[in-house]
Amino acid sequence: MTTRIQVAESVLSVNARNAAEVRAGLDARRIFSINLMASPGAGKTSLIERSVAALKSEMAVAMINGDTSEAAFDAERGQRAGALSVHINTHGKCHLEAAMVRDALEQLDLGQVKLLIIENVGNLVCPSAWQLGAHLNVLIASIPEGDDKPYKYPKMYSGVDVLVINKIDLLPYVDFRMDYFRRGVETLNPGLVTFPLSCRTGEGLDAWLDWLRARTA
Amino acid sequence: MTTRIQVAESVLSVNARNAAEVRAGLDARRIFSINLMASPGAGKTSLIERSVAALKSEMAVAMINGDTSEAAFDAERGQRAGALSVHINTHGKCHLEAAMVRDALEQLDLGQVKLLIIENVGNLVCPSAWQLGAHLNVLIASIPEGDDKPYKYPKMYSGVDVLVINKIDLLPYVDFRMDYFRRGVETLNPGLVTFPLSCRTGEGLDAWLDWLRARTA
Repeated sequence: MTTRIQVAESVLSVNARNAAEVRAGLDARRIFSINLMASPGAGKTSLIERSVAALKSEMAVAMINGDTSEAAFDAERGQRAGALSVHINTHGKCHLEAAMVRDALEQLDLGQVKLLIIENVGNLVCPSAWQLGAHLNVLIASIPEGDDKPYKYPKMYSGVDVLVINKIDLLPYVDFRMDYFRRGVETLNPGLVTFPLSCRTGEGLDAWLDWLRARTA
Repeated sequence: MTTRIQVAESVLSVNARNAAEVRAGLDARRIFSINLMASPGAGKTSLIERSVAALKSEMAVAMINGDTSEAAFDAERGQRAGALSVHINTHGKCHLEAAMVRDALEQLDLGQVKLLIIENVGNLVCPSAWQLGAHLNVLIASIPEGDDKPYKYPKMYSGVDVLVINKIDLLPYVDFRMDYFRRGVETLNPGLVTFPLSCRTGEGLDAWLDWLRARTA
């Protein structure tokens, strides 16, 4: 007689397997993908709008938008800017999971797509624990959020590959010590690639767009 | 022979019982308490600093600060402003729970305290599901976050008793349609008490402080 011990697989290891599956599918299609994370209102959708509008004559772009409710405003904004777009309702969950991305990809016609932007739920805590299969994790910090965020959300800041600093046009109107902010980032994530920009004025966007172009070339 | 069926009590009903215990303890001491929620960087700690500084000559104020890491900057800011202060490290959890508040209260000398402000983790999703035992749930919206937040975080906006709209000094520099924002709030939470203000300039703070005074009289 054989004794069988059932070990429940953790949800995170199931997620890691699903993420690997997503990645393999994207690689097979030569699609470069980013997982875009930020606080609510830091400018995820605005950055997607700007990026899609600037790049759509050069390449097809797809977006997957995760929100905690059925409101699909952000997916619609991406679509109006020119992206193929799918909305995911997480039904109150505070993050996207790889299985949600896998299911959303099945709803997209990926034939010509070269760039996929996954817009995560607005949250600086939960999304950091869930890999989605994207090639790079990109965090948007926002000037009016304050300069202490790296110190207060170290798990998020240490786990990302690229940092966008949005709303730099508001620097004259808020108390934001860029040195203090950057010191916090550098301690957690030395050498992190950073793009200071303003989605509102367009300042700094060219460097970000050139980076996306180089990644999708 | 009696068949016993064990039903695992849900974490939320355990939390509700702990919240009732917290509330009973506060009521016995005649302490008025608020659970302060917001996105990262919307101004929770700034509002606490302003409130404590303005009220400390009139009453003793305590704060409990929840953050996802050991960084106790916000609790220290509250303390410097004049509050009794305890930091809770949620160790990555995206919200406070009533048991954490109960344990934190044991570390405070509540003898003279009339007002307790609980600063939740910066997050517009998770905290809304967890009652802490506070008398009122207060949400801070922040102008630079954008006017679409009620539509995108309906569970948070519909579940609170008071709304502070912070950073109104930034209105001239961002695209924020106050009518659209207020319409979204009114649909979810009709008649919600609202305080537009700026922790930076001090504009609008008097109405908020008078409201706190009336509640603690």
